[in-house]
Amino acid sequence: MPKIVVLRYGHRLVRDYRITSHACLVARALGAEKIIINGNKDQSIEKSVKSVVARWGGKFLVEFAESWKSVLQEYKKKGYFVVHLTMYGKALEKEAKKLREKKKILLIIGSQKVEPAVYELSDLNLSVTQQPHSEIAAMAVALDWIFGGKELSKKFGNAKIKVVPRGKGKKIVRM
Amino acid sequence: MPKIVVLRYGHRLVRDYRITSHACLVARALGAEKIIINGNKDQSIEKSVKSVVARWGGKFLVEFAESWKSVLQEYKKKGYFVVHLTMYGKALEKEAKKLREKKKILLIIGSQKVEPAVYELSDLNLSVTQQPHSEIAAMAVALDWIFGGKELSKKFGNAKIKVVPRGKGKKIVRM
Repeated sequence: MPKIVVLRYGHRLVRDYRITSHACLVARALGAEKIIINGNKDQSIEKSVKSVVARWGGKFLVEFAESWKSVLQEYKKKGYFVVHLTMYGKALEKEAKKLREKKKILLIIGSQKVEPAVYELSDLNLSVTQQPHSEIAAMAVALDWIFGGKELSKKFGNAKIKVVPRGKGKKIVRM
Repeated sequence: MPKIVVLRYGHRLVRDYRITSHACLVARALGAEKIIINGNKDQSIEKSVKSVVARWGGKFLVEFAESWKSVLQEYKKKGYFVVHLTMYGKALEKEAKKLREKKKILLIIGSQKVEPAVYELSDLNLSVTQQPHSEIAAMAVALDWIFGGKELSKKFGNAKIKVVPRGKGKKIVRM
């Protein structure tokens, strides 16, 4: 399975707090290794994600970067295949097989209007349906297809708490 | 493929605007027929979803309901199988096959803390990973598994605009 780093393009303080928080938690839960947030450095997000990692385990990282372009160029040099999620891109269901064969992927998700250079500099523009919806949903479905569903049962090391799946109610085990 | 209606539990004006908007657009894009928003009646959301439907096509509906319990009971009577998405439920990857055989599903997604009665009255509590993340992502992945990926290439009738998927840039066709 490829190693995946998510780049969140254009985070704005306050306005994007909930959506970017969702993006971080989804990236972690569905098997990405790290999220790089481009835009305003938002310590409340960093803090809340770190607190999830401390309790729920794993090694997920949050970083901030002022320039998305520098991140993209740096990861290209490191051998990452750069995928930009956009409703205008090629269909996920046709591209997933090729993506599963990549070793390392930088997955870019937008927020407000994305500059044309993101389309140009990415190795692949990829769509999860050609309909307007949500970058959170698009990322989730893309990660699930690239990881072939195996991420759904991923184990997170060093967890302090763990859910035991059940039909009714809630069961948490403290380790 | 089952017919799916989404029930958004506990929408709050302003605070939940973006997340509930994402929920509506994801439900539509990934093949649900309708979303019922339980909580504050939010005409700005209704307006923006209707405008997407008018331009991008299909027959997706938005409704509001004051009582989630009445909706749940009404849909049970109509023969819907009620699925509540929660990180505490049974794993999607183990339940998906059974769900694909259902004719009609009411899919409940939470927002703020969900009452215990939702767990009790649902036919199935279902988890998309047992990790904390996002109801938008959980719904997207659940719809994708239940529809077996076929929803990704769904055609929307009466669309005024349509995207032509491509490697670079944006191409929209006006019909």
